[in-house]
Amino acid sequence: MKMSGGVEWSVHCLSLLASLPPDRTLSAKRLAEFHGIPAAYLTKHLQALVRDNILESIPGPRGGFRLSRATEQITLLDVVDAIDGKRPAFRCSEIRQRGPSALGSKCYRRPCGIAAAFANADAAWRGSLMNCTLSDLIAEIPEKVDPRQQKKSAAWLKKVLG
Amino acid sequence: MKMSGGVEWSVHCLSLLASLPPDRTLSAKRLAEFHGIPAAYLTKHLQALVRDNILESIPGPRGGFRLSRATEQITLLDVVDAIDGKRPAFRCSEIRQRGPSALGSKCYRRPCGIAAAFANADAAWRGSLMNCTLSDLIAEIPEKVDPRQQKKSAAWLKKVLG
Repeated sequence: MKMSGGVEWSVHCLSLLASLPPDRTLSAKRLAEFHGIPAAYLTKHLQALVRDNILESIPGPRGGFRLSRATEQITLLDVVDAIDGKRPAFRCSEIRQRGPSALGSKCYRRPCGIAAAFANADAAWRGSLMNCTLSDLIAEIPEKVDPRQQKKSAAWLKKVLG
Repeated sequence: MKMSGGVEWSVHCLSLLASLPPDRTLSAKRLAEFHGIPAAYLTKHLQALVRDNILESIPGPRGGFRLSRATEQITLLDVVDAIDGKRPAFRCSEIRQRGPSALGSKCYRRPCGIAAAFANADAAWRGSLMNCTLSDLIAEIPEKVDPRQQKKSAAWLKKVLG
C-alpha cells in the first residue's frame, strides 16, 4: 500500500505558502525550485489542490498559488483526498458472492464482516489525518525545523518576493 | 492508495480454513474453487501466508493448506503485512533536504513533522487491524453471513473433504 509522492510535496508546498505575507503568491516554478522537485509533476498536484479549494490560482504577471482557506481549515485528510482520491485502501470485490456457496445478489444487503473490519481501519486512518491541520504542523516548526533552515527559507522567500 | 486484492482473498481463505476439522487441509485449487478466484494468483498469496507462518503447507496426496496458529493469534495486520509488506503508506522522500534552504544531511536527525503526522495515521490504521483477529471475524459469522450460505458452505466442505 502506497500513498502518492504528491502528498508529501503538497503538504510541504502548503506549509511554505502558509508563511507568505497576505495577498502574495508563489508560482509552481518557485515552489518546485524551493523543494528541489520537478515543476511539471508538481503543477498537476497543485491543480488538484485548486480543484478541492485548498489553493487558489491567481492569474496575471504577479500571480501564482496561495492558500484558499485558513490553515486551521486544511487537514492532512483534505490533502490526501485531493491528491490520491477518496477511495478506501481496501476495495471489497464481494468474493462472498462467488463460488459454490453463493446466493442471489439480493441476499447481500449487509456488508461483509471482513470488509467492515477493513473499513474500521480506514476510518481510524482517516480520523488521524483529519485531526491534523496545517496549522498544527506549522505550530511545530520552531521545535522541529533547524533554526538555520528556517532562516535560509525566510531569506529565499524575501528574495523571490522582491 | 490501494491494498492488494490478495488481502481480501487471503482473509476469506483463512476464514474457510478455520472451519476445517482438525488435521484436515484444503488445496489451493479447492480454495480457489470455493471463492471463484484464479488458482494461480491465489497460490502466490497462500505461499506468502506460509512464509509468515500464518498457514502451513502439508505435502502429499491428502496435503494442502491449514492454519498454523490459533485463530486468536492471527490478526488482520498479520495478513496485510504478509501480502502487502510492512512498508508504511506514506514514504517520506526527505524533500526538506533539497532546494535552497537545505542544510547538510547531518542536520536532519529528527524526523520531519509532516512525516511524523503521517506515521501517526499509519499507526492508527495498523492498530485497528491488529485489534481484529480471525477469531473475531469468525465469531461474527452467525450474525453476518446468511444462514443459507453457511449451509451451502458446510455442504461443499463435507463433499470435498469426503
